[in-house]
Amino acid sequence: MIIPVNAGGKAYDIILERGAIKRAGTLLGIAEERRVLIVTDSGVPAEYVKNVADAFVNSEVFTFPQGEESKNFDTYRRICERLMELSFTRRDAVIAVGGGVTGDMAGFAAATYMRGIDFYNIPTTLLSQVDSSIGGKTAIDLGRIKNIIGAFHQPKKVIIDPDVLSTLSERHLKNGLAEALKSGIIMDKALFEIFERGEAEARIDEVIERSLSVKRKVVEEDEKETGLRRVLNFGHTVGHGIEASVPFGELYHGECVALGMIPMCDESIKERVISALKKTGLPVAYPFDKDKVREAVTHDKKSQSKGVTAVFCREIGSFEFVNMTVDEIMELI
Amino acid sequence: MIIPVNAGGKAYDIILERGAIKRAGTLLGIAEERRVLIVTDSGVPAEYVKNVADAFVNSEVFTFPQGEESKNFDTYRRICERLMELSFTRRDAVIAVGGGVTGDMAGFAAATYMRGIDFYNIPTTLLSQVDSSIGGKTAIDLGRIKNIIGAFHQPKKVIIDPDVLSTLSERHLKNGLAEALKSGIIMDKALFEIFERGEAEARIDEVIERSLSVKRKVVEEDEKETGLRRVLNFGHTVGHGIEASVPFGELYHGECVALGMIPMCDESIKERVISALKKTGLPVAYPFDKDKVREAVTHDKKSQSKGVTAVFCREIGSFEFVNMTVDEIMELI
Repeated sequence: MIIPVNAGGKAYDIILERGAIKRAGTLLGIAEERRVLIVTDSGVPAEYVKNVADAFVNSEVFTFPQGEESKNFDTYRRICERLMELSFTRRDAVIAVGGGVTGDMAGFAAATYMRGIDFYNIPTTLLSQVDSSIGGKTAIDLGRIKNIIGAFHQPKKVIIDPDVLSTLSERHLKNGLAEALKSGIIMDKALFEIFERGEAEARIDEVIERSLSVKRKVVEEDEKETGLRRVLNFGHTVGHGIEASVPFGELYHGECVALGMIPMCDESIKERVISALKKTGLPVAYPFDKDKVREAVTHDKKSQSKGVTAVFCREIGSFEFVNMTVDEIMELI
Repeated sequence: MIIPVNAGGKAYDIILERGAIKRAGTLLGIAEERRVLIVTDSGVPAEYVKNVADAFVNSEVFTFPQGEESKNFDTYRRICERLMELSFTRRDAVIAVGGGVTGDMAGFAAATYMRGIDFYNIPTTLLSQVDSSIGGKTAIDLGRIKNIIGAFHQPKKVIIDPDVLSTLSERHLKNGLAEALKSGIIMDKALFEIFERGEAEARIDEVIERSLSVKRKVVEEDEKETGLRRVLNFGHTVGHGIEASVPFGELYHGECVALGMIPMCDESIKERVISALKKTGLPVAYPFDKDKVREAVTHDKKSQSKGVTAVFCREIGSFEFVNMTVDEIMELI
């Protein structure tokens, strides 16, 4: 299945297909004479990378240690240095094979090397398949603040192969399901009901497709997050706060989003959301430090000088933007 | 005088006016409640920075050591860290007060902090006034390669005050005149004739205005350097090569461009160009290492996988693009 996306004046295709990674060379459609740097991390099964690398005459692989800790200035700089050592020009390209960390960072290198070269993304985790691979956001972390440095740089093509999810741990899978559930809560009631019936894993292809449709709709309307796109931050204001308040890596991003969505739901739907989270195997409570969360929320990059624009859900499949102070948000938790 | 620019769908004004820096607060038109980080270098007279800083309620100043050596990952990272420490949000802004190094680097920080916050530029050298301040190119160097990492990020406003040139050394002034002369050679015969008559310094306001008009025309047509904009690289392919082949800082950028333009002129006009360079006090010969130049030209970021698109001038006020191999270019030198 091909899902065409048109954001920021750039059109590209998402190819959603089982077994796609084995045909990556053909599907990416990169001309033979172009050079590609495949950026990947140590957690990605070697065969995926090999599948992609073998499809090109001139490919090089850059591998960094798996994990959010790698998403920093140093790794970013090393990718840039590698591109330079290889004398890459504006005609060459970067391909990410990995999760969100890999795609975000490889995308940022591609966005800024020579002020932008082509970027292709092959997300291999559910979280990156349903979320970060689409929309053109690229970034690295600085200090404890996630994604504080980055650029908007649309990929030329995205290849999503649900088969790769078979090598993903159960916890990583649920991590991705949290973002898909988020899309359901705010914009797709039918998607939410798949979770409510506890069928998300069994119907994973449909979950991916519906999530991508929600995200596509949003980013097509608002590439640069000046309006509608902020709806995707549902659960993230508090979620990022929780993520920054616990030891690095203790909770996964999706788990924090799961926890962060609950206070942002109206009482009338809260039980349904909690039940759907439980059926998906996501946490609904966690002993975090409220003061640390407050500090992180204040620092959050989406926060404005005065208060925060939060996303609130009164009815499944809908949302509203609410201007809240950090205090008001903390009261809901 | 206000010169409106419209590049990449973004419209902004260049204000060209003697004494403008003293009225920067009013002219920039930044709302009072917004915070600004003024990025400047140690070579900029303190009064210019004070003029700008005093115009704001919430201003902070970030100063780095003057010179191209500072235009690197470390300084860029420190600017980003400063923005983060100050909890800058997308509503706040960065103002550069300084030469091209300052504008390029502050602009890149503004382009990538939170994926882009507003950027204002107050260039204080002739080179940056006629060249880098307009067009939205931002960048840092990596290793010996100039501007290899960067982004396109249009400023919100540019303030050009020819009065500040009075504190500039004679050599820095000529450095800027080289880029203005370049604009004359390729696109403005009347501008070239000012140089030919040796009147460039005496008629500096006119030289700035005419240079800006050339540059505006080009960047409006081609923001991202996929076509016409490459005409501005006239003299730069060889110039960058020379710049990278001599000890860091031995030759100024404009001096290298001056040297780089000569081989790219047809025999029929070469003597006129050399004469104009001499009257401007720019070098027309230099004992550089040809092998090092070749190596740098090969690495140049504008070079393509196969050969280089060079700009050649057959007649004053006109240009053509020529595809050349590195060998062919080296033969012309």
